[in-house]
Amino acid sequence: MIENDCSDLFVQNFSFWKHLTDTEKQFLCDNTAPVHYFKGTNVHNGNSDCIGVLLIKSGQLRTYMLSEDGRDITLYRLFGGDVCILSASCVLDAITFDVFIDAEEDTDVLLINSAAFRQLADQNIYVKCFGYQLTAARFSDVMWAMQQILFMGADKRLAIFLSDEISKSGSNEIKMTHEQIARYMGSAREVVSRMLKYFSEEGIVELYRGGIRIIDKKKLHSLI
Amino acid sequence: MIENDCSDLFVQNFSFWKHLTDTEKQFLCDNTAPVHYFKGTNVHNGNSDCIGVLLIKSGQLRTYMLSEDGRDITLYRLFGGDVCILSASCVLDAITFDVFIDAEEDTDVLLINSAAFRQLADQNIYVKCFGYQLTAARFSDVMWAMQQILFMGADKRLAIFLSDEISKSGSNEIKMTHEQIARYMGSAREVVSRMLKYFSEEGIVELYRGGIRIIDKKKLHSLI
Repeated sequence: MIENDCSDLFVQNFSFWKHLTDTEKQFLCDNTAPVHYFKGTNVHNGNSDCIGVLLIKSGQLRTYMLSEDGRDITLYRLFGGDVCILSASCVLDAITFDVFIDAEEDTDVLLINSAAFRQLADQNIYVKCFGYQLTAARFSDVMWAMQQILFMGADKRLAIFLSDEISKSGSNEIKMTHEQIARYMGSAREVVSRMLKYFSEEGIVELYRGGIRIIDKKKLHSLI
Repeated sequence: MIENDCSDLFVQNFSFWKHLTDTEKQFLCDNTAPVHYFKGTNVHNGNSDCIGVLLIKSGQLRTYMLSEDGRDITLYRLFGGDVCILSASCVLDAITFDVFIDAEEDTDVLLINSAAFRQLADQNIYVKCFGYQLTAARFSDVMWAMQQILFMGADKRLAIFLSDEISKSGSNEIKMTHEQIARYMGSAREVVSRMLKYFSEEGIVELYRGGIRIIDKKKLHSLI
């Protein structure tokens, strides 16, 4: 008998589920636990831990790189239904780098512990393949972020960021400081402030204390 | 009967070989051809082609990103014995970005064409897993390059580059222009020239027309 919540969610999100034996299914569910992360929690801390694979039920996780002097670059964000694999990077030998992951909102996950996932990946090629395929998808996300960071003009990057934010929240207001936006974009606060001032002069946004209001979406999209 | 050159090289370099049926082995060899790339040839051109998987017998392939205005960032280089998978990115659905690949030296490869590799990956999970595992290894290479580009000081990056070059060639001389070095490092020529002048003043290198001679390896390594 397999626990229901576990198997239901896994059937939907894990392509390898149908290739598991009943024993493996039970083993997976036995080694899976619900975890709640409060907004702002550091979920995964570089190479100092390897918590396991996270199936996100709701909320938001942000994955980023960190330099020795504390600069941070956002690589990608994951939402409900996504699976976070780099929090189990120690399980996959071909992954030799490490990242940081924070809960950007209150986030509920199912956590499969690393030891159990490794055991399954070692004995079942479909599990291993799932892990690496997911890693390749995250590679794609990172390459997209790198294109933004390395090559794109600051105006285009900021326009994309603002546009993504309002389409995610469904509101025209973005309640973030310039400092926070810069951190998300892997840019400097000065650059963001200068671009926002320019956007405001162009009638694209209105700036107020602690936030930004988009007033001309069409013009914003024309920059992208 | 399986052609010998093909199977010998594949046994050594492809972990999935032992999981193929005889028919699949034959199919793979039938769809593999030796190709010679002259130094300077563009092997793979972003999303405009998808030539297939390359097993490098000898030579060097450089993988890089290209911006609209022609700036280029080296992601990693592959040598004899390495397998190039991003030249077959169309085969792996989780890869949604594209890169450029040049032969940096005269290079001999075995080329498995994309259609054949896709067919094998679709019918044999070990082939698919091999492709994605290799992609994860390249992801690690890219993350390493990004750490260099985004976070590290120019002096440290240049020291690592020079040190890598002399350990690869076994010589103390690097016959490259500042422009070429900058391109490899994803940096600007001015930055490289300035740093080399500084290295030269520090007695680490000697500069001559068309090249650089390392004269104090210990001091060079102390920068890394």
